[in-house]
Amino acid sequence: MARIFNFAAGPSTLPLPVLEQVQKDLVNYKSAGFSLIEASHRGSHYSEVHAAAGAGLRKLLGLPDNYKVLWLQGGATLQFSMVPLNLLAGGKPADYTLTGTWAKKAIADAKKVGKVTVVFDGTEQKFMTLPKASAVKATAGATYLHLTSNETIGGVQWQEWPQVGVPIVCDMSSDFLSRRIPLEKFGLIYAGAQKNLGPAGLAVVIIRDDMLAQCSEELTAYLSYKVHAGEDSLYNTPPVFPIWVSRLVIDYLNGNGGLPWVETLAQERSSLLYSMIAKHPNFYRCPVDAHCRSKMNVVWRLPTEDLEKQFITEAKAAGMDGLKGHRSVGGCRASIYNAMPVEGAAALADFMDKFARKHG
Amino acid sequence: MARIFNFAAGPSTLPLPVLEQVQKDLVNYKSAGFSLIEASHRGSHYSEVHAAAGAGLRKLLGLPDNYKVLWLQGGATLQFSMVPLNLLAGGKPADYTLTGTWAKKAIADAKKVGKVTVVFDGTEQKFMTLPKASAVKATAGATYLHLTSNETIGGVQWQEWPQVGVPIVCDMSSDFLSRRIPLEKFGLIYAGAQKNLGPAGLAVVIIRDDMLAQCSEELTAYLSYKVHAGEDSLYNTPPVFPIWVSRLVIDYLNGNGGLPWVETLAQERSSLLYSMIAKHPNFYRCPVDAHCRSKMNVVWRLPTEDLEKQFITEAKAAGMDGLKGHRSVGGCRASIYNAMPVEGAAALADFMDKFARKHG
Repeated sequence: MARIFNFAAGPSTLPLPVLEQVQKDLVNYKSAGFSLIEASHRGSHYSEVHAAAGAGLRKLLGLPDNYKVLWLQGGATLQFSMVPLNLLAGGKPADYTLTGTWAKKAIADAKKVGKVTVVFDGTEQKFMTLPKASAVKATAGATYLHLTSNETIGGVQWQEWPQVGVPIVCDMSSDFLSRRIPLEKFGLIYAGAQKNLGPAGLAVVIIRDDMLAQCSEELTAYLSYKVHAGEDSLYNTPPVFPIWVSRLVIDYLNGNGGLPWVETLAQERSSLLYSMIAKHPNFYRCPVDAHCRSKMNVVWRLPTEDLEKQFITEAKAAGMDGLKGHRSVGGCRASIYNAMPVEGAAALADFMDKFARKHG
Repeated sequence: MARIFNFAAGPSTLPLPVLEQVQKDLVNYKSAGFSLIEASHRGSHYSEVHAAAGAGLRKLLGLPDNYKVLWLQGGATLQFSMVPLNLLAGGKPADYTLTGTWAKKAIADAKKVGKVTVVFDGTEQKFMTLPKASAVKATAGATYLHLTSNETIGGVQWQEWPQVGVPIVCDMSSDFLSRRIPLEKFGLIYAGAQKNLGPAGLAVVIIRDDMLAQCSEELTAYLSYKVHAGEDSLYNTPPVFPIWVSRLVIDYLNGNGGLPWVETLAQERSSLLYSMIAKHPNFYRCPVDAHCRSKMNVVWRLPTEDLEKQFITEAKAAGMDGLKGHRSVGGCRASIYNAMPVEGAAALADFMDKFARKHG
C-alpha cells in the first residue's frame, strides 16, 4: 500500500503496526466469534482491554497510586465544562492562562461556572509567545492554575512548568504522552485522545485524590468525576473502540522505550523542521518565539500566500498531506505527533529545502 | 470463521457485511494512504461520511426538515444530563415515567436540574409492566413527557405511544431504528448507538426546531444543543469511528427495506422466543405483562436458578452467548436487536425446546 505522510493536526496519524493489528482482529476478536466492538463491556474480552489500558498508561507515565485514570467521552471540549463544574461549583475561583484558541474555549466555559482570573493573556501578541514559566504567579485562594500545554493552532508549547502554590490543571490534548512531565505539579490532566493516543471519541482524565475529594456532589451523573472514579470508568458503556486502539498504542509505546524514547523522537522531528526554516531565513519564517516553539505543531510562513498554496499542493502530490495552516491563521503547519515517523519529518525538510532553493 | 450468535444486551451484534467492510477499509481508506480514523474531521473523506450518515438517517426515519440530527458522545447517560439542562434550566417542570433501571437514571439526573413529576411508577410491580398508553396523562404546564421506549433489563417496551398535549422526549437507546414511529409525537429522541445503530461511544439526538429554540443559552459549550446544532455536530472533533460504522449500518438498513423490514424481523425473532416460552408453560416463564413485552430484550425464568445456570452454560457451548439476565434481576435474557439473524433466534428457540424436553 502507498501510505502517505499525514501531517493533520488531529485526528492524526497512528502507528501502522497498531492499525494492522486492529484490522486483523476486527471481525473475529481472539477467536471469540464476534468483534470486540460487539462485545459486552462487562464481559471478559473488553474487561481485559480496559484493565490493560489503565495499567499500561500508569506504567508509561509512572503514575503514583494517588492519581485516578478516567476514560471519558466528549473530548477535551467536554472537559472544558467538567473541570469547572466539578471544581468551581458555587463560584469558586481559578486562574487561567490565555495562550490560544484552546485556552480561550476553556476560559469561556469556566467563566460560566466559577470566578476566573486570567493571569496571562497572549491576545496582543497574537498567541505567538508564552510567558517564562518563572513569571507565572497564581492569585491568592485560586483552586487551580489552568494551562494548555500545547496550542495546535498557534504552535506554542510550554517547555517548562510554572512553580506555583496551587495545583496545575492542564489540557494536554495535543502533547499528551510526548514527553516526561513532573507529575507532582499536576492536580488534574486531561487530553482528547486523537493526537498522540488513539482515535477520536475518547478523553483521558488523570486526577489526584485530593482534587477528586473536592469535587462537587451536586452534579448529574455523567458530569461527575466522583461517579466515574467510583465505577472505574464503567458507570456507563465506555467508548470501546477508541480505548481498544489506545491500549494498543500504549503497549506499543511501552514496548519501544516509553516516554524517554518518544521525547527523543519529538526532538528529532521538530529539529529537522525548525532547522530547515532557519536555513532559509529569507524564505521561511516561524512566527513563534524561540523559547516556546512547539515540538508537536510546527507553523511557518512563506514569502507570499500564493507560494504557501503552491507549497501545500506540491507537498501533497509528493505524498505529504495536511500541511495547510489552520484557517484562522493561514500559513503552513506540520503536526508531528508520536506516530509520525522521523522519516516523514526528514522527507518534509528535504522538500522544504528544494522548494526554497527553487523559489527563493 | 466460526461466528457465534451473540445475544449481549449492548454493545451487541452488528451486521457482518458492515464489519467486513470496516475491516477491509481500516488501514487504507479508499486508497487515501491513511485510515479514516487518522483523517482530519474537516477533510473530504470524513466530511462525506458525516453528511451521508445524516442524510441516510433522515431517509431511514422519514425525518421532516424541522428536526435536527446531532451526533454526540457520552451515550444516553450524558443525555440524562443534557435533556434537563437544556430544557428544564431554572427549575422548569417535566413529567417522567418510571419504567425501569434506565428511566430511574434519567429521573435522578432530571431532579437535580428541574421539577420532576413521576406520572407512572412501576416500582411495586418490579418494572414488569407498563401502563396502557391511553392511561398516561401529562400534568398541566409540563415542558415534556419523558419515556424510555424499551427497558433492556426488565424487558418491557411501549407498544403504543401516549397521546398527550406536550411533546414526548424519549430515550430510544435500545429500540432505536427497530420499528416505525409516529414522529410527530416526539419533540426529542435520543439513543446510545450500541444496540441497533453502531459501536459504543456515540449518541444520536433528534430534536425538533421548536424544542431547540427553548434550550438554555447559559450552558457551557459541549452541554448545549444549540452549539452542536449550529455547527452540524462539528463544534468539536466527532467520534469518527462510531459514526463511520453507523453510516454503514444505516446504508445497510436503507438498502434492505428500511424500517418496515426491520420491524418484520423484530416481530419474527421475538415471536420465536415468546412462542417457545408459551409452549413449555411449566418450565419457562416470562414475568413481563403480555401487552408490553419487548421485541428487543426477551427475559424469562426457568424452574430453578441451577437450571438457569446450566441453560446458559450449555447454550454458550452451542454457540449462543450473552444469555445471562442482568445481575440485578437474574434469569435469562436474549437481546435480539436488528443485526441478530432470524436464524439466531430460531437456533435459540430450538435449543430452548430441547432443553425443556430434557429437563422439564
